[in-house]
Amino acid sequence: MKTYTIGIDFGTLSGRCVLVDCENGQELAEAVSMYAHGVMDDRLPSGRELPPQFALQHPEDYLDVLRTTVREVLEKAQIPAEQVVGIGIDFTSCTVLPVNKAGVPLCMTPAFADEPHAYVKLWKHHAAQPEADELNELAARRKEPWLLAYGGRVSSEWALPKLLETLRNAPAVYAETARFMEAADWIVSTLIGEESCSRPFAGYKALYHNNTYPSNDFMVALDKGLDGVVGTKISECIAEIAAPAGRLCAAGAALTGLNEGTVIAVPQIDAHAAMPALQITEAGELMLIMGTSACHIVNAEEAVDVSGICGYVENGVIPGLVTYEAGQAAVGDIFDWFVKNCVPARYQTEADSRKISLHTLLTEKAELLAVGQTGLIALDWFNGNRSVLDDSQLSGMILGLDLSTKPEHIYRALLEATAFGTKKIVDALSFPIHTIKVAGGIANKNPLLMQIYADVLGKELGVCQSTQAAALGSAIYAATAAGIYPDIASAAKAMGTPVTKLYHPSQREHQAYELLYKEYVALHDYFGRDGNDVMKRLLSQRHEEWTDGGAV
Amino acid sequence: MKTYTIGIDFGTLSGRCVLVDCENGQELAEAVSMYAHGVMDDRLPSGRELPPQFALQHPEDYLDVLRTTVREVLEKAQIPAEQVVGIGIDFTSCTVLPVNKAGVPLCMTPAFADEPHAYVKLWKHHAAQPEADELNELAARRKEPWLLAYGGRVSSEWALPKLLETLRNAPAVYAETARFMEAADWIVSTLIGEESCSRPFAGYKALYHNNTYPSNDFMVALDKGLDGVVGTKISECIAEIAAPAGRLCAAGAALTGLNEGTVIAVPQIDAHAAMPALQITEAGELMLIMGTSACHIVNAEEAVDVSGICGYVENGVIPGLVTYEAGQAAVGDIFDWFVKNCVPARYQTEADSRKISLHTLLTEKAELLAVGQTGLIALDWFNGNRSVLDDSQLSGMILGLDLSTKPEHIYRALLEATAFGTKKIVDALSFPIHTIKVAGGIANKNPLLMQIYADVLGKELGVCQSTQAAALGSAIYAATAAGIYPDIASAAKAMGTPVTKLYHPSQREHQAYELLYKEYVALHDYFGRDGNDVMKRLLSQRHEEWTDGGAV
Repeated sequence: MKTYTIGIDFGTLSGRCVLVDCENGQELAEAVSMYAHGVMDDRLPSGRELPPQFALQHPEDYLDVLRTTVREVLEKAQIPAEQVVGIGIDFTSCTVLPVNKAGVPLCMTPAFADEPHAYVKLWKHHAAQPEADELNELAARRKEPWLLAYGGRVSSEWALPKLLETLRNAPAVYAETARFMEAADWIVSTLIGEESCSRPFAGYKALYHNNTYPSNDFMVALDKGLDGVVGTKISECIAEIAAPAGRLCAAGAALTGLNEGTVIAVPQIDAHAAMPALQITEAGELMLIMGTSACHIVNAEEAVDVSGICGYVENGVIPGLVTYEAGQAAVGDIFDWFVKNCVPARYQTEADSRKISLHTLLTEKAELLAVGQTGLIALDWFNGNRSVLDDSQLSGMILGLDLSTKPEHIYRALLEATAFGTKKIVDALSFPIHTIKVAGGIANKNPLLMQIYADVLGKELGVCQSTQAAALGSAIYAATAAGIYPDIASAAKAMGTPVTKLYHPSQREHQAYELLYKEYVALHDYFGRDGNDVMKRLLSQRHEEWTDGGAV
Repeated sequence: MKTYTIGIDFGTLSGRCVLVDCENGQELAEAVSMYAHGVMDDRLPSGRELPPQFALQHPEDYLDVLRTTVREVLEKAQIPAEQVVGIGIDFTSCTVLPVNKAGVPLCMTPAFADEPHAYVKLWKHHAAQPEADELNELAARRKEPWLLAYGGRVSSEWALPKLLETLRNAPAVYAETARFMEAADWIVSTLIGEESCSRPFAGYKALYHNNTYPSNDFMVALDKGLDGVVGTKISECIAEIAAPAGRLCAAGAALTGLNEGTVIAVPQIDAHAAMPALQITEAGELMLIMGTSACHIVNAEEAVDVSGICGYVENGVIPGLVTYEAGQAAVGDIFDWFVKNCVPARYQTEADSRKISLHTLLTEKAELLAVGQTGLIALDWFNGNRSVLDDSQLSGMILGLDLSTKPEHIYRALLEATAFGTKKIVDALSFPIHTIKVAGGIANKNPLLMQIYADVLGKELGVCQSTQAAALGSAIYAATAAGIYPDIASAAKAMGTPVTKLYHPSQREHQAYELLYKEYVALHDYFGRDGNDVMKRLLSQRHEEWTDGGAV
């Protein structure tokens, strides 16, 4: 009997479900369910207005994904439910919600339907910055042993700042919270009928390091109200990746239309789930996911503290390995900003008449330039710096401009700047990286960009043409959990997507880029490491002007 | 009998002649003669190709200006020649030519008609850079007393590097040269029938400082061939400004159509001639001429060495005062570059539909922003830095960019950057400046720009609406030389152009700009004063790529 698994990727605006052949990873059907409530950053369903920087979701939307998409893929592929041997899910993170003793999200109980803190706090809910600042300051002062594993800083997006925000601002919600869970864990718990807590979410987003959370001493020092929080509101029963979380319960079967007893894999963070899909299962292999922003995830044998890296988790993605995570807060967003704001009408006319995009036109022109010929160098901090410096108050810079500078010169300098940013991250990782695989929309769309990355890094790049890498990765985790494969490496080998295009570095270009990279590093350190805090001062002067009402 | 004077402004591409009423400076007629040979940077009239960086002119074109325009203004205004009491001329500088013993330009003699070095070397002839470098190095090593009066550096545009270039590359021309003259002096000598040498040209461009040229010792150390050059090929008979150089000779009368005996004033450099036209005749008054680039000329009581300033000359513009000259190599050129290269099609569409220019549209939008609200700061070195740093290898920079940056933000940051550049020059001048008068196309076209300058400088700005300030200034010098007025101050008061619009600094904006200016100065010093020579290295890498043939 042929076997299939289902992967469900819960994104920011929708859930996407794929049905995959366990033999070869072939996708037989796909279905998407948009979240009815989307991202609530303005008001609750009740009409209640939300404070600034809130970004909430409604758990009902996740259930809708389970209700509709699984049935849809079975129907489309004409596969009977009994041939589906496992389900894997991946989720944005850190996306967290409070549930009561019965496992019901508090926002779905009448008492709390009008309470913002009872809802799902989406990864990009940024209202817990004061709590994150306080936590960072305290942890640094106490020299908490786990802090360096997270690059020396905890993000406001992570679980503990969000929980502390609830304690401080909605004590009734906090009191009623039986568990404060990742949405991924809540979905899996709902499917299996018992609680589950996945290691990658706990490890990357909830400070679960060396098999323990921050001490109760630390929690109490942070806020007396957190006394005893670990083991009560925060689960300590950690489930390992690439294994079953449990089996589909009767209610889960009714919800999805699959058979009771179907294996449910331990869930994974969405970006990380792409790793097995790209057949990255060994140490020294870096995955670079490039879209509006970029995510760098790499496996290593050893756990070492790397300053400015988002974090590392042992057994976080591939059992037996340590997986590091880093990122650039803007990549494709920078090129889009440039095309929307900085390219003159005559270029638009040329692109229109040739029926190509401005990106394509600029890429064509930029491709004709030799390394260094633009005379420009840029800093890629148009949305701050997420890794190495980890400072959201930094901004972009372009230097070397003169009266002969053309749009394609600046465009190329911006492409190069993001490559330098990636090289800075790769250089910061102090262990060997022998393979780089790239996925994401712009990696496939822009060969010049990929060649620049290969030349800047001086390394071969393999690009994978995978549009549903996260969902496919979840299906691969499911096949492993269901025992179709003995381990994630063999599952990935059979079901994952191979490299479709290789980019080889040119030695000549690499040497020319080494000179430019030296300049990048000098500017990076000058503006990013207290040589000159002008970017922060400009930002604060700008904020003052806005709040003064000087703005229009 | 009413009296009139004629001012002739010899520019880069044409000569412009105005006929002016001595009583009130009113312009009665104007005539223009384009140079038939224009700027020869490619080949000689014979077809002989020119080396790179040559920029030559043909003296015949200047004679054509005299032949046609003077008659044309007399005709247009219907004024008889006897009512014209004086002629003043101003000229681009340093624009120099070799003449033989008869005062004939060598290029107009058959023996040298095919010899590039026999022609007029226009101000922007840049082929003498090696000679300038050698001269600077030697003068600095010998601690020559005059070097600091020229800001510590001699430009390749000036007379001595150009003469040395001739000695080295065309010894036959050098040998035959009786005088190596400014074109202005040659024109005046032609008109009066005897040699004349004007102080401002000698002072600003030929190192005539403290009533003497560099010593013969220095000349010989520079090149043995220069032994005895001063007093032979270089005239020591210096004529003072605002006085007559002589009277129109018979040949000059025949050339111009004016009466023999008409007073010919000592000529002036073109930018400097604008000073009396703007009624600037006292110490502490700064003239700012703003066009594609900017020129800052200011009078003071005392001669002090100012590092990085182009130069100062006693009695150079106003008898009894010392006049300093500085400049910015690009101002309007930067805004034009931005509008041509960096403004998106939707802005073009909006401007077209409202039938306004992109400059006007961007200015409207930029005007709505408060100081500091752009979050940006820029360095205005898009064509290098001419004053304070005096380094043509510096380039432009924009810092503080993020994904919300709009074209009007950058446009405003560029306007502000040029204002900071002017403030840096004003700050470098260590004597009091109580008045700033501005002229030039963009000063009248862009009130936002002028308000920014007033706010950045924290000083009142007076803008003069004068399109022919240089030619008017020459006519004012002529009226003084002819004795219609006792001195240049009273002539300027009667005939000059008053301020047409005043811009008052706002204290609030000035304070906000003080913060930004501090940032500008820090970046100015970091990138311009050996903190980080990245701009020079980028430029040299760029040049290598071009010469490698990597370019297309």
